[in-house]
Amino acid sequence: MPLIVQKYGGSSLATSDHIRRVAGTIAATKREGHQVVVVVSAMRGETDRLIALAAELNSDTPARELDALLATGEQASAALMAMALASLGLRARSYAGLQLPLRTDANHTRARIIDLPTGVLRRDLDQNIIPVVAGFQGVNGNGDITTLGRGGSDTTAVALAAALQADVCEIYTDVDGVYTADPNICPSARHLSKVTYEEMLEMSGLGAKVLQIRSVELAQKYRVPLLVKSSYGSDKCTWIVEEAESMESAVVSGITLDRGVAKLSVIHVPDRPGIAYQILAPLAEAQINVDMVIQNASIEGYTDFTFTLSKEDLPKARPLLDQVAEEIGAREIRADDSIAKVSAIGIGVKNHPGVAARMFKALADENINIQMISTSEIRISCIIESKYGELAVRVLHDAFDLQQR
Amino acid sequence: MPLIVQKYGGSSLATSDHIRRVAGTIAATKREGHQVVVVVSAMRGETDRLIALAAELNSDTPARELDALLATGEQASAALMAMALASLGLRARSYAGLQLPLRTDANHTRARIIDLPTGVLRRDLDQNIIPVVAGFQGVNGNGDITTLGRGGSDTTAVALAAALQADVCEIYTDVDGVYTADPNICPSARHLSKVTYEEMLEMSGLGAKVLQIRSVELAQKYRVPLLVKSSYGSDKCTWIVEEAESMESAVVSGITLDRGVAKLSVIHVPDRPGIAYQILAPLAEAQINVDMVIQNASIEGYTDFTFTLSKEDLPKARPLLDQVAEEIGAREIRADDSIAKVSAIGIGVKNHPGVAARMFKALADENINIQMISTSEIRISCIIESKYGELAVRVLHDAFDLQQR
Repeated sequence: MPLIVQKYGGSSLATSDHIRRVAGTIAATKREGHQVVVVVSAMRGETDRLIALAAELNSDTPARELDALLATGEQASAALMAMALASLGLRARSYAGLQLPLRTDANHTRARIIDLPTGVLRRDLDQNIIPVVAGFQGVNGNGDITTLGRGGSDTTAVALAAALQADVCEIYTDVDGVYTADPNICPSARHLSKVTYEEMLEMSGLGAKVLQIRSVELAQKYRVPLLVKSSYGSDKCTWIVEEAESMESAVVSGITLDRGVAKLSVIHVPDRPGIAYQILAPLAEAQINVDMVIQNASIEGYTDFTFTLSKEDLPKARPLLDQVAEEIGAREIRADDSIAKVSAIGIGVKNHPGVAARMFKALADENINIQMISTSEIRISCIIESKYGELAVRVLHDAFDLQQR
Repeated sequence: MPLIVQKYGGSSLATSDHIRRVAGTIAATKREGHQVVVVVSAMRGETDRLIALAAELNSDTPARELDALLATGEQASAALMAMALASLGLRARSYAGLQLPLRTDANHTRARIIDLPTGVLRRDLDQNIIPVVAGFQGVNGNGDITTLGRGGSDTTAVALAAALQADVCEIYTDVDGVYTADPNICPSARHLSKVTYEEMLEMSGLGAKVLQIRSVELAQKYRVPLLVKSSYGSDKCTWIVEEAESMESAVVSGITLDRGVAKLSVIHVPDRPGIAYQILAPLAEAQINVDMVIQNASIEGYTDFTFTLSKEDLPKARPLLDQVAEEIGAREIRADDSIAKVSAIGIGVKNHPGVAARMFKALADENINIQMISTSEIRISCIIESKYGELAVRVLHDAFDLQQR
């Protein structure tokens, strides 16, 4: 009997009516002759409500307690879903992460799964019981409750699908899949019925917030076919799978825009060996990820050093860098958070050397200045002024012929 | 170092301000040189909110899932309390029942504690960490979350105090202890600074809702001194302890009123051996507790059979009894839920044979008819018409000289 893992996000579980509707979808899947394992997020708004309560009590919330608090959101919706399934005459049992137990490392608020025993789930499935697993949470070696980070329920679902060797992992969300661009920015954006894990990883990492990036990594690693579907009954969906012969042959599959970036420049640094390390090491120590890095050509022994980072990390990075500037004798630090990263993504990029040129020309034709460039095997990204973000997406969408046909 | 277990009820934890205030009380206890273990209920309103959600999804909520759902309320408040303590510079760690683990039997919604390991709590105390335990919940042998029934956090606290051999178990609630009668009914009610376990058991069982009755049983069994205090800063409190020489020597310690009772009468039953068993056995099978029982003197081979039960059980009991009536050839069943039970309680009752007479006379003087009577070693209870309930309390309070002096 085919086994499906279905994950429902918070917006699919906003009220008891939503929960009842989702229970109906699960029941229909059972009737079609599938075994089903369900993973749920917290009801919409619940996580924010709990975070607000925590913030009222402690401005520097202890991570262990924050995890214990937030985990209750998913635990409650799992129990409610099991009740809703029972009211439809189905047998169901809810599980908190502690009960499986879904074992993680010790990193509170962003733990990684290290072991996921399937004993109780297999037993339930054998008895025609639907297990309903609270997503997002696990337990570390010390018996403490951990959480997997925002969007962590996606990762729970994929991990379960991998451990149970499920035929597919279905992610029900408030969108009906992946588009060539954000339809709110680019009205001609086209729905994609299939993307590769690699493309999805680049898109997830760049602000197309359909799936938690780690869930895609995990799906790729264990070859779990992922299906992104709307929980509001749209017929459309997107498969996230391995690259296949039958893939759509477009050079570029999508254009993404990431507004969550900022730029820091260290101006007029004496250019000597090891300077990049001196600048970036304190940031690495503070767990701040740096993305693109540029070091200008040296003029008279001095250079400028620029890099991008997450906008969220700017307040933490700025004072660290001020200190570094003093130590290395730089003239000043400039911060710029009015930038955006626009990217063209597609497995075709590998084999089409002309993609970058086409991208730069399209932006130049609209007088959009490119401040920084970075590339991966299947992606080209440009840092531009933030105000041109939407325009750049539309321009590139046209330039790569992604519009609806 | 003296060890105190402190339990805070939902009304003490209604908002983040309440939680912060309670954290202050705990901090003060630490400063006085005590080790502290904290037990918390769910925040006020949270349990009702969850029950309402469950009811929207399933009119016949599966008990396993209801327990998993409700347990989240205490788990969340434990984490929030640990955060509040951390913000005061104290080290604290929250624990769900699953984490200790507090092991119970398999009876969902009214489980009994069977084992309570103290390893993690002892380790925390040794490291100057305050354990904050989510009350009301445990885990059964199957790994399912269970709950201990309404008021179950009291029982969690006493069980912890017993297991840790604490010096005292303090129950913080919205009243400042036990009174000779409900002050809302009887304005001259007097605060009691000390009552015995036995007296408290009779009072708890009769509608004086200060403590869950099982917590008092447990305290008595393990000789845990209980202290009931107001979380709103009143100086008054009530000790619940073993009978001691120094006990106040009043014959009667308090008058209670229980409106949660109903009466069922089986009219004109052929009087033959085994008739009581035939009537009551189906109720016992349905887990319905019967309290007082009267069988009238037989007249011409027929008798009437009357008993009281919890008002809540009446809808379940009535159809069972209708069936029994047919089987045994009774003429009819009469139900009466407009009754109340008024009781005089005190360890002095044991040694003062005149108490019953004084009680009956006081009620007769006010023309309050006594429908049924039952007694225990330290209690005399009368069933009266519901509308005389408050009057009866005041009359008896005066008759036994309980008023404030």
